[in-house]
Amino acid sequence: MTTSPASLLTIFGATGDLAQRMLLPSLYGLQGDGLLPASMRILGTARSTLDDDAFRTLVADAIARFVPAEQRNDATLQALLARVHYQPASLDDDASVAALAERIRGLRSGDIVYHLSTSPKFYEQACAALARHGLAGPGTRVMLEKPIGHDLAEAIAINDGVTRSFDEDRVYRVDHYLGKEGVQNLLALRFGNALFEPLWNARHIEQVQITVAETVGVEGRGDYYDHSGAIRDMLQNHLLQLVCLTAMEPPSQFEPTAVRNEKIKVLRSLRPIGRAEVAMETVAGQYTAGAIGGKAVPGYLDELGRASRTETFVAMRAHIDNWRWSGVPFYLRTGKRMPNRCTEIYLQFREVPHSIFARGGAASQPNALIIKLQPEERIELQLMHKTPGLDRSGLRLSQVSLDLDLDERFAHERRRLAYERLYLDAIEGNGTLFVRRDETEAAWQWVDAILDGWNHAGSAPKTYAAGTWGPNAAVAMTERHGHSWRE
Amino acid sequence: MTTSPASLLTIFGATGDLAQRMLLPSLYGLQGDGLLPASMRILGTARSTLDDDAFRTLVADAIARFVPAEQRNDATLQALLARVHYQPASLDDDASVAALAERIRGLRSGDIVYHLSTSPKFYEQACAALARHGLAGPGTRVMLEKPIGHDLAEAIAINDGVTRSFDEDRVYRVDHYLGKEGVQNLLALRFGNALFEPLWNARHIEQVQITVAETVGVEGRGDYYDHSGAIRDMLQNHLLQLVCLTAMEPPSQFEPTAVRNEKIKVLRSLRPIGRAEVAMETVAGQYTAGAIGGKAVPGYLDELGRASRTETFVAMRAHIDNWRWSGVPFYLRTGKRMPNRCTEIYLQFREVPHSIFARGGAASQPNALIIKLQPEERIELQLMHKTPGLDRSGLRLSQVSLDLDLDERFAHERRRLAYERLYLDAIEGNGTLFVRRDETEAAWQWVDAILDGWNHAGSAPKTYAAGTWGPNAAVAMTERHGHSWRE
Repeated sequence: MTTSPASLLTIFGATGDLAQRMLLPSLYGLQGDGLLPASMRILGTARSTLDDDAFRTLVADAIARFVPAEQRNDATLQALLARVHYQPASLDDDASVAALAERIRGLRSGDIVYHLSTSPKFYEQACAALARHGLAGPGTRVMLEKPIGHDLAEAIAINDGVTRSFDEDRVYRVDHYLGKEGVQNLLALRFGNALFEPLWNARHIEQVQITVAETVGVEGRGDYYDHSGAIRDMLQNHLLQLVCLTAMEPPSQFEPTAVRNEKIKVLRSLRPIGRAEVAMETVAGQYTAGAIGGKAVPGYLDELGRASRTETFVAMRAHIDNWRWSGVPFYLRTGKRMPNRCTEIYLQFREVPHSIFARGGAASQPNALIIKLQPEERIELQLMHKTPGLDRSGLRLSQVSLDLDLDERFAHERRRLAYERLYLDAIEGNGTLFVRRDETEAAWQWVDAILDGWNHAGSAPKTYAAGTWGPNAAVAMTERHGHSWRE
Repeated sequence: MTTSPASLLTIFGATGDLAQRMLLPSLYGLQGDGLLPASMRILGTARSTLDDDAFRTLVADAIARFVPAEQRNDATLQALLARVHYQPASLDDDASVAALAERIRGLRSGDIVYHLSTSPKFYEQACAALARHGLAGPGTRVMLEKPIGHDLAEAIAINDGVTRSFDEDRVYRVDHYLGKEGVQNLLALRFGNALFEPLWNARHIEQVQITVAETVGVEGRGDYYDHSGAIRDMLQNHLLQLVCLTAMEPPSQFEPTAVRNEKIKVLRSLRPIGRAEVAMETVAGQYTAGAIGGKAVPGYLDELGRASRTETFVAMRAHIDNWRWSGVPFYLRTGKRMPNRCTEIYLQFREVPHSIFARGGAASQPNALIIKLQPEERIELQLMHKTPGLDRSGLRLSQVSLDLDLDERFAHERRRLAYERLYLDAIEGNGTLFVRRDETEAAWQWVDAILDGWNHAGSAPKTYAAGTWGPNAAVAMTERHGHSWRE
């Protein structure tokens, strides 16, 4: 795979919400740090009939609204705007597509990155249009926004549609979690330290918990959300990617094929949870009215304005059936309207095999490594140490944490947006932090079996009050195996 | 071994410097925390002809001078003084010894602890006198102050002398390092956590360094010190005890026999360093004039006022020849007039076996665990993590520390004197933190071979300027094996 840095980045859906909130601010960040190739152009396209100047005004407005004031300066803005162009186009209008193609040809001087920041239903059509105009060959790459489909069948259809025009190794599927600093740090911790790898297996780890908790409800997004639910919106993509990075074997290189070959092995090792297992191994929940941070919030059905069986919470007990993880439960949970916003990976080590301090000592608690990704980035290692002071009955133990608050430690470093990393990599032609087709489809296959189990059981999600950690059943699911959720 | 808490603690040398600085303040601390048995008496004895009241005044003075004001209160002092008695005695004066015996008999109501805070040359005589008066039988225990002898032959003679009167399991040899909170915490860390033990061996550890650095010189103690030197004064006892606790196999219980059986195995596994090895594996040093903390200080010979070949610094490369530690160097060093006061154990893990981040990444540094005992108590785990921010060439690593400052974390806890722990254990009859005869003798045997090698070579210690980390030869000793002292 020979690639060179992109000479042109074309963003489809360039006037949309994601573009304004994330994509343009990310490009601004890369511009400020001097990380964009000097001669690279940026071409926005969407249905809106703007000209270059009107789009530049939109870009400047987005930067003003979504980049913190202390990070803004006019020189960077002007340098970014000087790269920016706009060409309106509608996929249903061949003339407009031809004009777009003409514009692309005029702006490119080498490789092109297309970013389809649109609904997945347009992916095939957009790719076909580019191919028709000879703009989908070697030296072009396409970034696809998540989610890829609503189930395995849709994912396959979308992927088939895209790969009719773009070879798989030029398709860059975005899961923005992979662009997060903390997620990459998980890889650095695992494979940059000799300390953890010998312990990173079923012999030494008792359980793993991965939590992605949001405090927000669905608010204005109710109609979109109700069609997907927590398992499709969060678990199928983000949580399973975290499972992959936590559980995978060491790749031989930090390189697209090596890393993704290890990730797909994890997804294919997930023990299926189907009709016979869903009742015991999964819990779906839906929030009712409650309070978060002392503020009353409405229930999901009130926000939606109609009846629904869509889950806003899901918890499950997953197993990875391979040598490394045999018997170690991976408890996964994600939900809206949780007590606080939190993304973390918690690895609990096994108890000491034998306590030499039994005489009068309090029970030793197991060691744990906690990798917090949100809201703050933090690494925490929970250890037992000697309780300070004297005790007639001998040496007593208590728990302490070795801590590293990365945000505090690197407070001088601007926290990067996930899309900065992802754009930089796509521009440079490095697919390591993008999702390969087989990963998407293996994740859907596993999730589809659960959805089928739920549908077959016909049960409604269990309710939980907003501001709690989900239905009681989620607690029961871990406790009956002797494990407790971290709170 | 059936013991009950002591009814009487008899301190020989009760008017001495150690008693005033450490022993009486420690008893005051135990009194304040309610850890002394309610009816236990304390009997001081020495040559000085004081009566009870005069000794109580001495005790009160010592408390006033050596216990920080914020820890003092009159109620505790009065409660302590109410336990305190004094009986003058000289071992050469049979009548005075008989009177002491009479007094002991009068004050005891059960077990007795004798603490011989005197020169070791009086140990045998004192023990024999107690035996002669029927006060050395079951239910009595004797604490011996370090050092036990000047070499193996002397140690054997002293131990033989003591054990003629006291069974070995009633002999409590003090190494006050074992009473330190941080030293006990080393055991808690090793055996209270499942995390470390799988890594605690030659497969995962590259090197161990144990440093006991003092900034003080010999000052008024020159004549005493010149007779011993760094290897006898610090290494033979304190450093080798730290080696034992760092290297030993997990004992089955935190209990005297189990712990000391593991320690002696380490001492007996130390690879001998003799005439053929001393030149390469050891470095002796003696400080010359220099500066510490910007203040000029004289050289050792100036302080002593005469010529001397006594070493004030020793560094060595030790090996423990057993399965766990085969091939792992234990670098030991201790010295006076070092740049700062510091006692620490440093375990450096092996490098990652394979770096997946090679492409453009800086070299990964090996992980390390640092257990600091002095001046502050601190645990530090050095890890690699992702360098925050973006880099075109991929993911870069840098080093960070997970830290636990125990002094800061437990600032509300009074820091205990080592003798508080040791007195409490001797009173309760728990010998775990005392040194067994075979340990002392095995340590001397190993050290004697080095001293013999030095004598045979006839070389003078190498000089080092006060305020430096010892002679250059100490640096060369590690560097030729690819290791660097931590500074």
